[in-house]
Amino acid sequence: MRLGVNYVPRGSWFYGWTRLDRAAIRDDLAAIAEIGADHVRIFPLWALLQPNRSFIDPAAIDDVLAVVDEAGRAGLTVTVDALQGHLSSYDFLPSWVLSWHRRNIFTDPDVVAAEEELIRTLGRALDGHEAAEGISVGNEIIQFAAPRHPHPCTLTSEQAREWGERMIAAAKETFPQGRHTVSFDDDLLFDPDHPFTPDVGIHCGDLITVHSWIFGRLGPALGVDHPRLALLARYLLELQAAWASAEGVSKPLWLQEVGAPLTYLSAEAAPEFLTHTLEAARAVDGLEAVTWWCSHDVSRTLADFPVVEYDLGLFDADGNLKPIGRAFSEAAARKDEATPPPPNDTIAIPGLRQDGARESVRPDGPIFDAWASAIEAGQPRRLAVKEDA
Amino acid sequence: MRLGVNYVPRGSWFYGWTRLDRAAIRDDLAAIAEIGADHVRIFPLWALLQPNRSFIDPAAIDDVLAVVDEAGRAGLTVTVDALQGHLSSYDFLPSWVLSWHRRNIFTDPDVVAAEEELIRTLGRALDGHEAAEGISVGNEIIQFAAPRHPHPCTLTSEQAREWGERMIAAAKETFPQGRHTVSFDDDLLFDPDHPFTPDVGIHCGDLITVHSWIFGRLGPALGVDHPRLALLARYLLELQAAWASAEGVSKPLWLQEVGAPLTYLSAEAAPEFLTHTLEAARAVDGLEAVTWWCSHDVSRTLADFPVVEYDLGLFDADGNLKPIGRAFSEAAARKDEATPPPPNDTIAIPGLRQDGARESVRPDGPIFDAWASAIEAGQPRRLAVKEDA
Repeated sequence: MRLGVNYVPRGSWFYGWTRLDRAAIRDDLAAIAEIGADHVRIFPLWALLQPNRSFIDPAAIDDVLAVVDEAGRAGLTVTVDALQGHLSSYDFLPSWVLSWHRRNIFTDPDVVAAEEELIRTLGRALDGHEAAEGISVGNEIIQFAAPRHPHPCTLTSEQAREWGERMIAAAKETFPQGRHTVSFDDDLLFDPDHPFTPDVGIHCGDLITVHSWIFGRLGPALGVDHPRLALLARYLLELQAAWASAEGVSKPLWLQEVGAPLTYLSAEAAPEFLTHTLEAARAVDGLEAVTWWCSHDVSRTLADFPVVEYDLGLFDADGNLKPIGRAFSEAAARKDEATPPPPNDTIAIPGLRQDGARESVRPDGPIFDAWASAIEAGQPRRLAVKEDA
Repeated sequence: MRLGVNYVPRGSWFYGWTRLDRAAIRDDLAAIAEIGADHVRIFPLWALLQPNRSFIDPAAIDDVLAVVDEAGRAGLTVTVDALQGHLSSYDFLPSWVLSWHRRNIFTDPDVVAAEEELIRTLGRALDGHEAAEGISVGNEIIQFAAPRHPHPCTLTSEQAREWGERMIAAAKETFPQGRHTVSFDDDLLFDPDHPFTPDVGIHCGDLITVHSWIFGRLGPALGVDHPRLALLARYLLELQAAWASAEGVSKPLWLQEVGAPLTYLSAEAAPEFLTHTLEAARAVDGLEAVTWWCSHDVSRTLADFPVVEYDLGLFDADGNLKPIGRAFSEAAARKDEATPPPPNDTIAIPGLRQDGARESVRPDGPIFDAWASAIEAGQPRRLAVKEDA
């Protein structure tokens, strides 16, 4: 299993992209490598890369390459997240899709063509950079189509999948050795009204990605420090794997984001949550990598982040390793230990296209409960789509 | 009369603020000084100056100072426009007032306090810089409260005026020698549903500002190249002066924006439009300065600007002086010639607080018609609020 972190620059957060401080970045990346991470995911801001629909700033692309090269020097590989998009509650769309220029970022032909061009430009720039692993398309960019978004883009599921396929094709075309993915939150799995459906997560990209956040449904259902919280990531991975298998798709799994939110964990319990989450996830057949969210705490001098966002780092905002960072480092040392074979017994889940499928597999529902109980009883059962579905 | 230009950086447009090219800026400003301008207005982007509510980027403030100093070296004075805001159809609000963080930028106490802090920071930075003239608050920022905005902020007229007064007070407090203004489009004068009312334009700031655009109402009413189009700026100045006088306010007038849109002017007629607009405006008692929009054409390589925005420069996008730039230069040579005394005869207008006042003074209505006809007949009459209003 590969183990890495989502890189949140110390002090400057992602605002630092406007004025790259290479020395600070070098320090951060060295510290990240030091605790045993082998890769990072980085998040340049879309509006800086492409301030106008027809202008991709070559200097901003150079900044991305500079960070990739710094990571390489630290011994890390890098996935570059394109189309930011959305980060820690803040939306960062470029001005040319907002307000008087408002356009649907998933269906407007000019906008989608511009997005492809940005991904192609990034792909061409990254191709040949040894540390560059691939492009992840949008950090939970599907939030812009979520019914809960203040100004959601509307589209059909067919359009959502077509969009995902076009973005991945643009990355493949220009960076064929790269491994490219689409990123999404668990609305894709659980919100029945979301146009991005589970098949997009399975069919688009070289790996199947999972973002696991206990604050969504499981934390509110179970409460702070409940031991089952550490099973969520494994559950999401198994769920995606089961749905993929039923679709005849076999791809590695990537737990691309998982973190320890102190809204549902005490600070004391957070390191153990990391340890248990990674142990549980490692048991999933086909898991290739885990990327912790995140490297560094958000500085308390920055205002208005949701309270949960400030404390997600393995390092604090001054760069000191936190207890959860030590737990990460210990997990890194154990990451290649053998795992038990996957269980043969199954728990039935509906096919991803069945009515009500997304509601029925929610982690606050009976399927999760049965699945978690089986693990707790020492007799794990894997999720499998019903033959008769 | 002082004569200057609104500085639109050649090639990079305002996107260039992310990576200041001082040599290019020096060239631009030297060219602007060369054609006889004595001042510029500059437009740093709010989101770069203040990426987070509690973080004002000192390096971005330094960029503003660098441009001010370059202007000073070219022999120009500078007004720095804070709170961009809105530029040429694009909205550039920072992420901390948008989307999930949406807040009213005129009434939310935290947001308004942050705006004051930005203006104070700019004020402190500019105070003592010889070329710095003052701060203009928001390039037509009242558009964010316009009923026609896609997501308007709602507020009362009292709140609008209070906001304007607080912004000006923040500038005064930190840059007492500066001359500070609030900027607005003519919705303030003519849209009866706009919460920013004409008294805000009169009472807030050291000068009364006017933005004159024939594409709003007069162009559509009169058609391309109509000779009366060149009277609009004078009319707006006289209207504001008349309302100010009735309020007992005596301040210099600043025609802060006026331009030659090729949607209502042929390219051949544009230079003469400039000449006639400036001649007409000079006749207004109390006019201190005119600032043409704008220095440089928007490059055609940049997409999605409204068609009118591409050709407003005195220089083209490569920096070549256009015929309208030569007309500007000739006007600069004549700017201190004597003007006739203001007329004694008057045309009655309603007081700014009278019902229907804003509709009745529109440039496509009978008051403008009577006023323009008097000028054309060689017997100008000034606008004056009815005694019995």
